[in-house]
Amino acid sequence: MLRIALAQVNATVGDLDGNAGLIVEWTRRAAARGARVVVFPEMMLTGYPVEDLALRASFVEASIAALHAVAARLEAEGLGGIAVVTGYLDRRTDLAPRTGLPAGAPLDAAALLHGGRVVITSAKHHLPNYGVFDEFRYFVPGDTLPVFRVPVEGGESVEVAMAICEDLWQDGGPVAVCARSGAGLLAVPNASPYERGKDDVRLDLCVRRAREAGAALAYANMIGGQDELVFDGDSILVAADGALVARGPQFEEALVMADLDLPAAPPDPGPADQPVDAGDGTVITIRRVTLPPSRPPAATDIEETAEAAGVLEVERPEGAGLFWPRLSDPAEVYAALVTGVRDYVRKNGFRSVILALSGGIDSALTATIAADAIGPSNVHVVLMPSRYSSEHSVTDAEDLVKRQGLHALTVPIASMVDAFAEELAPAGFPETGAPAENLQARVRGVVLMGLSNAGGHLVLTTGNKSELATGYSTLYGDSAGGFGPIKDVPKTLVWELSRWRNAEALRAGATPPIPENSITKPPSAELAPGQMDTDSLPPYDVLDKLLDDYVEKDMGTAELIAAGHDPALVERVVRLVDTAEYKRRQYPPGPKISQKNFGRDRRLPITNRWREPRPS
Amino acid sequence: MLRIALAQVNATVGDLDGNAGLIVEWTRRAAARGARVVVFPEMMLTGYPVEDLALRASFVEASIAALHAVAARLEAEGLGGIAVVTGYLDRRTDLAPRTGLPAGAPLDAAALLHGGRVVITSAKHHLPNYGVFDEFRYFVPGDTLPVFRVPVEGGESVEVAMAICEDLWQDGGPVAVCARSGAGLLAVPNASPYERGKDDVRLDLCVRRAREAGAALAYANMIGGQDELVFDGDSILVAADGALVARGPQFEEALVMADLDLPAAPPDPGPADQPVDAGDGTVITIRRVTLPPSRPPAATDIEETAEAAGVLEVERPEGAGLFWPRLSDPAEVYAALVTGVRDYVRKNGFRSVILALSGGIDSALTATIAADAIGPSNVHVVLMPSRYSSEHSVTDAEDLVKRQGLHALTVPIASMVDAFAEELAPAGFPETGAPAENLQARVRGVVLMGLSNAGGHLVLTTGNKSELATGYSTLYGDSAGGFGPIKDVPKTLVWELSRWRNAEALRAGATPPIPENSITKPPSAELAPGQMDTDSLPPYDVLDKLLDDYVEKDMGTAELIAAGHDPALVERVVRLVDTAEYKRRQYPPGPKISQKNFGRDRRLPITNRWREPRPS
Repeated sequence: MLRIALAQVNATVGDLDGNAGLIVEWTRRAAARGARVVVFPEMMLTGYPVEDLALRASFVEASIAALHAVAARLEAEGLGGIAVVTGYLDRRTDLAPRTGLPAGAPLDAAALLHGGRVVITSAKHHLPNYGVFDEFRYFVPGDTLPVFRVPVEGGESVEVAMAICEDLWQDGGPVAVCARSGAGLLAVPNASPYERGKDDVRLDLCVRRAREAGAALAYANMIGGQDELVFDGDSILVAADGALVARGPQFEEALVMADLDLPAAPPDPGPADQPVDAGDGTVITIRRVTLPPSRPPAATDIEETAEAAGVLEVERPEGAGLFWPRLSDPAEVYAALVTGVRDYVRKNGFRSVILALSGGIDSALTATIAADAIGPSNVHVVLMPSRYSSEHSVTDAEDLVKRQGLHALTVPIASMVDAFAEELAPAGFPETGAPAENLQARVRGVVLMGLSNAGGHLVLTTGNKSELATGYSTLYGDSAGGFGPIKDVPKTLVWELSRWRNAEALRAGATPPIPENSITKPPSAELAPGQMDTDSLPPYDVLDKLLDDYVEKDMGTAELIAAGHDPALVERVVRLVDTAEYKRRQYPPGPKISQKNFGRDRRLPITNRWREPRPS
Repeated sequence: MLRIALAQVNATVGDLDGNAGLIVEWTRRAAARGARVVVFPEMMLTGYPVEDLALRASFVEASIAALHAVAARLEAEGLGGIAVVTGYLDRRTDLAPRTGLPAGAPLDAAALLHGGRVVITSAKHHLPNYGVFDEFRYFVPGDTLPVFRVPVEGGESVEVAMAICEDLWQDGGPVAVCARSGAGLLAVPNASPYERGKDDVRLDLCVRRAREAGAALAYANMIGGQDELVFDGDSILVAADGALVARGPQFEEALVMADLDLPAAPPDPGPADQPVDAGDGTVITIRRVTLPPSRPPAATDIEETAEAAGVLEVERPEGAGLFWPRLSDPAEVYAALVTGVRDYVRKNGFRSVILALSGGIDSALTATIAADAIGPSNVHVVLMPSRYSSEHSVTDAEDLVKRQGLHALTVPIASMVDAFAEELAPAGFPETGAPAENLQARVRGVVLMGLSNAGGHLVLTTGNKSELATGYSTLYGDSAGGFGPIKDVPKTLVWELSRWRNAEALRAGATPPIPENSITKPPSAELAPGQMDTDSLPPYDVLDKLLDDYVEKDMGTAELIAAGHDPALVERVVRLVDTAEYKRRQYPPGPKISQKNFGRDRRLPITNRWREPRPS
């Protein structure tokens, strides 16, 4: 019987000291709960993704040094008997520089720490280079499969192999070689970002790969926000037959534990190095090591240490492993947005945010997410009525402020707008139309940025994905800011999340945070008299379905029409999406919840004469 | 003797019709000049880079259809006897979708067109995935080397192989296989963007690879601007012994021609398909075809056709090949900036630009580049003096306007700034300091964007690379705009280019376009009384040297100090550069002239706690 713990924790990119501290702290907790093996996420020590930091020699050196230091520190703190598998950044030293080779030959690596030492290391074999991943820019592929023998009760041992994240997603490679190695467990550090529905895909994948490997599979995933990415945790343990043994919480740090019944390793470990055809056109070398029979730290000893440090929450698992309750679809999307905002604010050294509150649903939801993320006392909202603002826009905004207890400030924009209009009139600047509408939005942007500079608040933009897709926003106006919490949320989902959040509050006996009127009234930018979104755009339920088919599913115009979309609308919307790229390029980042959030997962040239063929 | 033409032309991304038209037009010119083989650039038919358009099935289909159509059109116009090698976008149809495979398995392909047909195709084998290139996201590698036999005089034939761009830059692969094939000429379509000094590297590369291949090498490069990239042309023909035979102009469309003395092909062409070890761990199949002995169109016949179309400029080359004069370093940088601006404006459908003219050197040079690119009558400048503007800032700006004949407008910003300050004072907005300085810059941004919206002008930003690197700019203020002509130009180079441009004017007997005072006065943002750039930054000659070592050469702090930089300055500047990423992400594109222009060639995480170790 092997007690294993998956530590799904929140690393911060570049914070080597902080991340090393997490490894020690969570190993201590795992030891206190009797774990013999602890698996941390991919690139735990450096955070993920490090982008061009991978190409900086001083950073790679610091990662390697930090790895050795954390191994020594674990031993010094009495945790050297635990086998710790963790991700970090390493490099190959045997490759001469050449065109096409990432500078310094960096590796997306994993290490086994034990007895104060770095016992063995390996690197990710399959490098993802699609969606948000650009790993061929940064890494050289690994070509070994480490298998380490862990002594257990009765003089026997079990064998544990190590692979990393994408190694599970592509065929052949480490999983195939693991099957050949006879290891009873495959430990897999991951940094797999959240997408709606990806949890089901991941579970299916783990089940399938465990069966292929003929080994139990320990999938340890990161949690927390990093620029646009939000890692959801949701770590998974499956047995060799594919049975689910433990599953972690979503968007929370946790130790996901289980007792695994693994086959005893044969007495003879076999050759130290064994090259094997990996079934993907490459050869992978199985590299075996045997851990010395160190007594795992007695739970009681460590409990005293840990209690003194005030970090212990002992929960001895009942049965085989631990399971956390699953979140509903709106709950997990909402949690992703809250996590994304909380970590972007905190990890970038901000304490407070500021945003424009219009009385409409986008800014209402954004404010609510922010309040849930960092507390209402850290959320500053600015009401900036213009001459076209309806009365309800002010009263609905004030209602929200009261419900949530936010800091509110009212700054009417008429005097600034008039000053521009007056100064620009001689140059022929029009009193109405798009330039005049944009001017109002930009005056608001300047007010927000000014208050941000003066008060040290991060500006949140309130644009949703439907707007971002179609370019229905003002550059440097409503698109001005440091982070866009709902930039990947289509308008129809904005409404759904708002209703869900209110219902949750009611269920908990609290006041619904969002005024009902903000949810039910027809959307308007209020930049011209009587203006409605539907003057410029189709109804959002029609638009969002079309955008999903075009952007997420990447259908061409013929397919879109075959799928039942109106041909004229297809032509119009495709053109809007294709020509709004220059605006999207200058939009701030925001938490990603879909396959294609218009971040680096979907990029068109700005200079682009291509138009989808007119459907015939 | 084989007369070959390299058509270095300006393709536009997505403009399949326009690009096909260029193929026909330039083939006609080449035929008129007696060429038997014409080589066009990489991805000629689609433009380069197409980014996510490569993953859109409808676009790939359109590219393939356009290729067949252009083959037929060449034949119909009497040009079917010319062997035309051109780049286009294709796909593999024999690969099932799988994780990691770009959707639709696209190919960065080249085709031989002859006799109205697509005779043979191949695809780029080495895919670059560094710097500005992300080709593992978009393409599947090719695994064939086509060799076609072209009948020449006396019943003999010569053999021509085809490879694409990066195939030259990496060892092994098509060049190695070309040597095995015995082909006398390697024709290589390219889309190789300009970088300072890259022309020398390219020439050395062509010489080396020609010798390795044992074949003459025809390097046809694109010209023109595409978003941040500027292609410089500079096409090259070298003989098998490495002797330079012809070299094209920089940043201009041209037919670069030469008569090559190639070995006669053996009578027996050998097997149609011959797999060969490519020396890079892969196998490449040599695929041979023989063109029918079509009489090349007589120059006189085609001259008549072409004269009728009004496109003919007959220049019969003297000697072996044509050579254009080389540009000096400042001349080629300046040409890159002018080309980048001209094509960004034109290809995005603008006719005019607008920019803020401060009297300082950055905006003076930007205006001059714009006037050289699209003509002074299409350049609108706005003078926006504030209460801190010096008298010389207005007079220097007015002097420049007069010298160049630009459209000028003066919009004092005091009334707008005051309106904001008054409205924001109750919220504690300060009268001085960074927030107040940024406010002035943002008011100018709003004015420019308003005039842009009203007049349909593209806004040019005037920030230089030293500012962009250190974050010495205002988000949504001076950084607001659609294109930044000097965003990759360090301040010291801004001065050098300005002096060079004035000297060029003098040499040509014209008025120097830039007022001497704008070049010589100390730089200031003029956002506070008596403010100088040197209050916040070190002298630019010191700063630019340090930035070059840190950004372009990627030195760590220890190396920077060893290279002689002041340790305290190193610490300060590295920190400035590393923490300005969020501003750079929202900066508009601009022509790239260095290895790392802070576009996608250099990306740090925004959320990043890493600090270079303090030098000890």
